[in-house]
Amino acid sequence: MLPFKSLTSSKQLTPKIIEQLFAVIDDMAASIEAKGRIELLDDKVVALLFFEPSSRTMMSFQSAAQRLKAGMVFAQNAASTSFEKGESLEDLIRMVESYSDIIVMRHAMPGSADIAANTSKVPFINAGDGGNEHPTQALIDAYTIHKKKGRLSDLDIVFGFDSLQSRSIHSLSRLLAQYQGNRFTFTGPGELEPSASLIKELEDLGAQCTVTSDVNLHDGYDVAYVNRLQEERFENRALFEKNRQKYRLTKADVENSGCLILDPLPRIDEICTEVDDLPNAVYFEQASYGVPVRMALLAMLLGKA
Amino acid sequence: MLPFKSLTSSKQLTPKIIEQLFAVIDDMAASIEAKGRIELLDDKVVALLFFEPSSRTMMSFQSAAQRLKAGMVFAQNAASTSFEKGESLEDLIRMVESYSDIIVMRHAMPGSADIAANTSKVPFINAGDGGNEHPTQALIDAYTIHKKKGRLSDLDIVFGFDSLQSRSIHSLSRLLAQYQGNRFTFTGPGELEPSASLIKELEDLGAQCTVTSDVNLHDGYDVAYVNRLQEERFENRALFEKNRQKYRLTKADVENSGCLILDPLPRIDEICTEVDDLPNAVYFEQASYGVPVRMALLAMLLGKA
Amino acid sequence: MLPFKSLTSSKQLTPKIIEQLFAVIDDMAASIEAKGRIELLDDKVVALLFFEPSSRTMMSFQSAAQRLKAGMVFAQNAASTSFEKGESLEDLIRMVESYSDIIVMRHAMPGSADIAANTSKVPFINAGDGGNEHPTQALIDAYTIHKKKGRLSDLDIVFGFDSLQSRSIHSLSRLLAQYQGNRFTFTGPGELEPSASLIKELEDLGAQCTVTSDVNLHDGYDVAYVNRLQEERFENRALFEKNRQKYRLTKADVENSGCLILDPLPRIDEICTEVDDLPNAVYFEQASYGVPVRMALLAMLLGKA
Repeated sequence: MLPFKSLTSSKQLTPKIIEQLFAVIDDMAASIEAKGRIELLDDKVVALLFFEPSSRTMMSFQSAAQRLKAGMVFAQNAASTSFEKGESLEDLIRMVESYSDIIVMRHAMPGSADIAANTSKVPFINAGDGGNEHPTQALIDAYTIHKKKGRLSDLDIVFGFDSLQSRSIHSLSRLLAQYQGNRFTFTGPGELEPSASLIKELEDLGAQCTVTSDVNLHDGYDVAYVNRLQEERFENRALFEKNRQKYRLTKADVENSGCLILDPLPRIDEICTEVDDLPNAVYFEQASYGVPVRMALLAMLLGKA
Repeated sequence: MLPFKSLTSSKQLTPKIIEQLFAVIDDMAASIEAKGRIELLDDKVVALLFFEPSSRTMMSFQSAAQRLKAGMVFAQNAASTSFEKGESLEDLIRMVESYSDIIVMRHAMPGSADIAANTSKVPFINAGDGGNEHPTQALIDAYTIHKKKGRLSDLDIVFGFDSLQSRSIHSLSRLLAQYQGNRFTFTGPGELEPSASLIKELEDLGAQCTVTSDVNLHDGYDVAYVNRLQEERFENRALFEKNRQKYRLTKADVENSGCLILDPLPRIDEICTEVDDLPNAVYFEQASYGVPVRMALLAMLLGKA
Repeated sequence: MLPFKSLTSSKQLTPKIIEQLFAVIDDMAASIEAKGRIELLDDKVVALLFFEPSSRTMMSFQSAAQRLKAGMVFAQNAASTSFEKGESLEDLIRMVESYSDIIVMRHAMPGSADIAANTSKVPFINAGDGGNEHPTQALIDAYTIHKKKGRLSDLDIVFGFDSLQSRSIHSLSRLLAQYQGNRFTFTGPGELEPSASLIKELEDLGAQCTVTSDVNLHDGYDVAYVNRLQEERFENRALFEKNRQKYRLTKADVENSGCLILDPLPRIDEICTEVDDLPNAVYFEQASYGVPVRMALLAMLLGKA
């Protein structure tokens, strides 16, 4: 049993809760392998509200629901819902809660997840609220690191390349800061450094934080967690191009570094495809954990695991 | 058993049929409560064709199908179907009837539901055809009124605020006009008065009709059924704003009036949020009946209830 | 058992394999009739990736999956996926393969199906790759002809009216060219004649090919396989209108010709609706085989039939 009804922030994912969740995730992965689909949520209906584009999160939640034989209802397309006509988020949630047993929502507005969770009578999962949080991604990331390293503490972790706006970086760093002895190095263009408030929040939890424009993965890092730069974040195309060239992991950067490479994906330019076959490139394995992780969350929040 | 294969108009929903349907709706609501999902339509496939935006109707039909364990096929997005390329509605229906056991369609063209129902070999449900009819909504509305008032006859009902174009008002008034002793008061901007042909139709059925620009809910009304004004219906923004201010239910309008407030939703400005917590504000309860009502219709039209 | 993991081209559909598939399709059609839905793929999840508009193919694949009780995951809308942001097709497939047991994809780029099939660890089905191939449609078409004629060899077949760009014509002609004694007559506007390379490919397989701008269906043809002209293929509207008038089957063209009329649909102007009730107009029957054909392919590629 989880001590909360809804998951909106990775701050809720404490080491004790993570330990419980990992055991359930292992069971879910084993059930996919052995049986394909199980009847665990056969009597439940999951609402999937994706008001922003999504491929990985949307599809892996669908797959998770289907592997547990839950029913699904969709309001996938913002443009095709009344929501666009001026209906409030509260009203929308009051509707959807009567059509489903649990609500999963992605929404462009930071903080929308809290509004929805506070309104909803049924459990709620934040599948990304603007640049704020993406706690289910953080759980996937933590599960991947634990699989490979056997621990979530005493780790040297590089975060890049847009620590300012990446909700995945925000959520994972908040999760890992709750463990002992973690050191975070944020790297990327100066424009995209993490906010001072995030740094303060992480340091208050006990993490050691460094911000730098240059990192060498051969300097003893355990994990590099990177994602793409977006052109619209830069003043002009030339500046974007310069940074895109600089913040791109090559085979030489990664090979024999002993550093695990994670990426929430999609991957655009931030990792050269020549890196894909290296043993420490684990981003596709990481993506594959999306299904058992989301199965575990759905099942636990519905009191079935 | 229903005496028709397809539901296109609330005129088909006679008091005798309503009585049968209400019993099945009660059963469906109880089954959701007790079991979450039941196997009643486990061997059926429901086609959901929403060629116009929808959130409530679409999602509650999905939920209804899933709670009965029916399979679903979608052609949700008009823009993503061949339909846009110039295919006729008849051809489209001839295709979908071979992919499913029952067809649910929303379509922008008034009268499209009749064309589809006449073409289809499988049962068909009108989920809204332009400004014409929305009979499943009318059934939800009638069920809500009956739940709260214990009767569908001898009622004083206010309809507003766009009686000209609201298919929900058209369908509900046609349904209720078949009962004894109902009195309808249509209110709203002069531009949006009900058509003379609707009034004549309702009076021919025995309903007493009044059209007025002003109503006081404290004057002994049993039910007020309202929905939003749409800016595009008015000559200019100023006129729209004036009417929006005027046709908006406040706490003072509603409190202690003894008048039930219904709204097919989405709610924009027509009801202040301060009204939500009053005991006679039943629009969210009304929305929640979407699932059992649509379960009952699917099951009965497929000969399973 | 099929001798391949993925289906990308109708060239894989040899006479021997077609014979096996037809037996399974018959079984699937019988199971729909008798039971509505069966548990055959109850432990599987099917991914449906439609990155181009589709109604028939999309909906019949959904129906096929639901009739076999498979789970489904969707990435229906190209505009709502990360794919648009610059992610490679290979990366996309590496993600989806971990969310599903089989992948069905429609994509605008000719050759995309081969890239996806070569990348994917799970079976893959090409549901149309640009103007290249549409092998599941070819199987539906061949099944329809076989049902009606009792054979797939020694047939005189007319193809029209856009043999240059129709992937359905490409795939069906490649399938039928593998049978003995087939004669193909391609007809339509000069701009839309089949490519020399397609003709060579078909002749190398043993088919006799003729290209002509005029055909009389009363001249002993067994089958006419036609589809619509698209305005954008012509230099100007006048030329398009001229060709649209010319390449349109009327009742007089078809009646008493003894020639079966097939069309992958949607039908726009290429067949007058007056033709629909003639006994040799089989295009709606053809459309109805979409479900059992796709059930057979899903089941066989998953090793369950």
